Amino acid sequence: MKNLTLLTDFYELTMMQAYHHHQTHTGRRQRAIFDMFYRENPSGSGYAVAAGLAQVIDYIKKLQFTDEDIAYLRSTGVFGDEFLAYLKTFRFTGDIYAVPEGTVIFPGEPLLTVNAPLMEGQLIETAMLNIINHQSLIATKAARVCWAAQGDRVLEFGLRRAQGPDAGLYGARAAMIGGCAATSNVLAGQLFNVPVRGTHAHSWIMSFDTELEAFRYYAQLYPQTCILLVDTYDTLKSGIPNAIRVFKEMQDSGEPIGQLGIRLDSGDLAYLSKQARIMLDEAGFTNAFISASNDLDENIIAELKVQGAKITTWGVGTHLITSKEYPAFGGVYKMAALSTDGGPWQNKIKLSEDPIKVTNPGAKKIFRLYDKKSGKMKADLIALHDETLDNSEDLTIFDPIATWKRMTLPAGEFTVRELLAPVFKNGECVYPDMTVTEICEYAAREKETLWDEHKRLMRPQIMPVDLSQKLYDLKQSIIAQLRENK
Amino acid sequence: MKNLTLLTDFYELTMMQAYHHHQTHTGRRQRAIFDMFYRENPSGSGYAVAAGLAQVIDYIKKLQFTDEDIAYLRSTGVFGDEFLAYLKTFRFTGDIYAVPEGTVIFPGEPLLTVNAPLMEGQLIETAMLNIINHQSLIATKAARVCWAAQGDRVLEFGLRRAQGPDAGLYGARAAMIGGCAATSNVLAGQLFNVPVRGTHAHSWIMSFDTELEAFRYYAQLYPQTCILLVDTYDTLKSGIPNAIRVFKEMQDSGEPIGQLGIRLDSGDLAYLSKQARIMLDEAGFTNAFISASNDLDENIIAELKVQGAKITTWGVGTHLITSKEYPAFGGVYKMAALSTDGGPWQNKIKLSEDPIKVTNPGAKKIFRLYDKKSGKMKADLIALHDETLDNSEDLTIFDPIATWKRMTLPAGEFTVRELLAPVFKNGECVYPDMTVTEICEYAAREKETLWDEHKRLMRPQIMPVDLSQKLYDLKQSIIAQLRENK
Repeated sequence: MKNLTLLTDFYELTMMQAYHHHQTHTGRRQRAIFDMFYRENPSGSGYAVAAGLAQVIDYIKKLQFTDEDIAYLRSTGVFGDEFLAYLKTFRFTGDIYAVPEGTVIFPGEPLLTVNAPLMEGQLIETAMLNIINHQSLIATKAARVCWAAQGDRVLEFGLRRAQGPDAGLYGARAAMIGGCAATSNVLAGQLFNVPVRGTHAHSWIMSFDTELEAFRYYAQLYPQTCILLVDTYDTLKSGIPNAIRVFKEMQDSGEPIGQLGIRLDSGDLAYLSKQARIMLDEAGFTNAFISASNDLDENIIAELKVQGAKITTWGVGTHLITSKEYPAFGGVYKMAALSTDGGPWQNKIKLSEDPIKVTNPGAKKIFRLYDKKSGKMKADLIALHDETLDNSEDLTIFDPIATWKRMTLPAGEFTVRELLAPVFKNGECVYPDMTVTEICEYAAREKETLWDEHKRLMRPQIMPVDLSQKLYDLKQSIIAQLRENK
Repeated sequence: MKNLTLLTDFYELTMMQAYHHHQTHTGRRQRAIFDMFYRENPSGSGYAVAAGLAQVIDYIKKLQFTDEDIAYLRSTGVFGDEFLAYLKTFRFTGDIYAVPEGTVIFPGEPLLTVNAPLMEGQLIETAMLNIINHQSLIATKAARVCWAAQGDRVLEFGLRRAQGPDAGLYGARAAMIGGCAATSNVLAGQLFNVPVRGTHAHSWIMSFDTELEAFRYYAQLYPQTCILLVDTYDTLKSGIPNAIRVFKEMQDSGEPIGQLGIRLDSGDLAYLSKQARIMLDEAGFTNAFISASNDLDENIIAELKVQGAKITTWGVGTHLITSKEYPAFGGVYKMAALSTDGGPWQNKIKLSEDPIKVTNPGAKKIFRLYDKKSGKMKADLIALHDETLDNSEDLTIFDPIATWKRMTLPAGEFTVRELLAPVFKNGECVYPDMTVTEICEYAAREKETLWDEHKRLMRPQIMPVDLSQKLYDLKQSIIAQLRENK
């Protein structure tokens, strides 16, 4: 990834200069804790999948204002020499904690938390939100699509409809984390070492005088994976019969054959796939794939499944790569605490008329609670950073808004795991390198910790995300205090 | 922009290898004409705005497979030595024509057309679609938002919600082409030399003990452009009164003052802006800006305008940078003609059950027809590349599907302009460099050629996009021929 230091909102820099001026001229030094969290799962989902941390790490490591950047900032007329001299030596010196990529996440919990000099914490807001909002959005969408496909292979095919090159590239990465089996995006394959797939387009067929000739040439060249696109002229009357004819020729040739299959790209995919299955089976090609594409999303896939479509592989483009009906994750980054001149943390909240929009104060951690027997997740509990929790006592948790909604986890019957892991310590990256394949495996295990009721496409069961008693009490006391001052 | 050679679908490369194999082993050499076009204006718009050509040019110029790329492709096990040796020397040698960036465009017309050896035309499909689909989408959305704002300044504020870094960067570029006055994106400012704007966030206010102190410090530092965010605690009771107090202090100081203003970021923007206007005017700050942000789009802006909101500047984020309710442009790239071994062009169409999905054959151009008196656009006419047209005779054009819908432009009363400009000739770029500012000025003039009826947000008047008699006849003859062969 390129140096993205200037990939930030202008106001981050005007604020930084103002903080810097304050520090230089009054000696005031401030350190802040910022939390990134989101408020609503995309697409009505019961959960989301965190993604993008590796690119955030890369961004932070490369943060550096080049001479060219400084010259550009100077040219705006807004920044003075003092501040520009500071930027020249800028590097990130703070701490970052985050949930690992591939983790199942829920609204309101801190996915990433920064503890850094205020100026530094401010600068990095925009790019971190951009990266994590995007990849978490697509990983979540992919998880929904893969869930609808009930274990069939889902291929990410959306590059041409992605919102720019990065959206295609990192969208493919996120789609893999969400559960896709492969992508059509060659650059993603190269950079992230993930499987790439694709065969041919209508233009291949159109470059020959006949469909049969086009199929035959293709089969001769790619006997290992020969998936023929059958809808250029007439799927049932021409495409599938010609494909079967070529598959038989391949058999008769005595040469080794790999995976055979067809791709449907138009028409009624339920009807056509069922007909195709019958035709292929009757010809003896019971193992032949039937892959399908054409404006698919999780809802259409689910309905085609209900109708008994005989599709084995789903190519999903536009809807997946843009998260079409819900194209922005909406993650935000809010100040949770502030320390001036090395003094104690002042805990901060931002009030709102909407109770779920009131932020949670202070330095926090997330405890994830599991049912010990089934290994399934019971709830998340957001707590203050110095709280501890074990399963030696009964634990009663409660909804922070509808406080009468309570649940008790009996001692010994639950397990606890902390979600936030150290990523940077004093500006040094302390997070292990993970391959995308490792992240995918972890994400698959993560989804296994949810009951199906949480994964339903529509109106899923809501996972409780509660506050510890201490955090709840702190929040109430700050709210009361702010109301008094008003 | 980085080298995006591998930013392509895998099937482009498997097809290329197959074409290459055919060429090497049978001597067959094919050249193709491909058209990029789209089928539906985004968001129910009456038109779209073309954008992204500069990045396509950059992409084509840099097309080159590095040793690393070749090694990666070899590692997939799909590509042979012969083909990889060809890729090593690959460069684009074809011709490209395109409509200039900022041009008002309509469904069905070729925005970009490629005439190149089939292998080359195939490779570049995916990245060109990705780039132009993205930027045209955002430019169109921006044009709608700016139209709704009725000449008020619209600022692009969406970086944190964009689908990755490029979506933020090139989305900001496209938003400027669509009509935005500035962006918050500093990197876009640096790379495209466009104005950047931004002041401060809630966190600035929260880092001081009081709002007044925060405003005062900010005003002292930025007297030239002092836009204060007034909704951190209470907009009407605290924010605006404190802002006015600080503005008065600035006046009283005798120091030079620039642009003053406030920003509203929550609450009812119609009510609050009207109250703010009264309060600011009563205090003598009749020139103070009232800027507003908070999940705005063209429809909300239009409705706030109807309600007499006193907003002078609109900060638009998520909805603009993702084109939220219509996040994919849907441009496609289809073969229009094929020539084998230097023989004559065979014109190609792709049939579909849906008449508007049947492609237009052959090498084409676009004539744009204007009413001579008003300078407003009357229609586009897609014609074969060797047709000519002048206004010395009456011109009757007709809808290619509802052929009874006809319009006659009397001789001398219309003017004609050709839209497609040469971009590459034999692989050499022949297109002039244009700054984003120049493109913005051109785009503004382009929008002036549309009547308001075409620019209405909902159910706009549809611009006719007709076919010349020759192209229409050619299309019908090919359809008849394909039906016969069936």
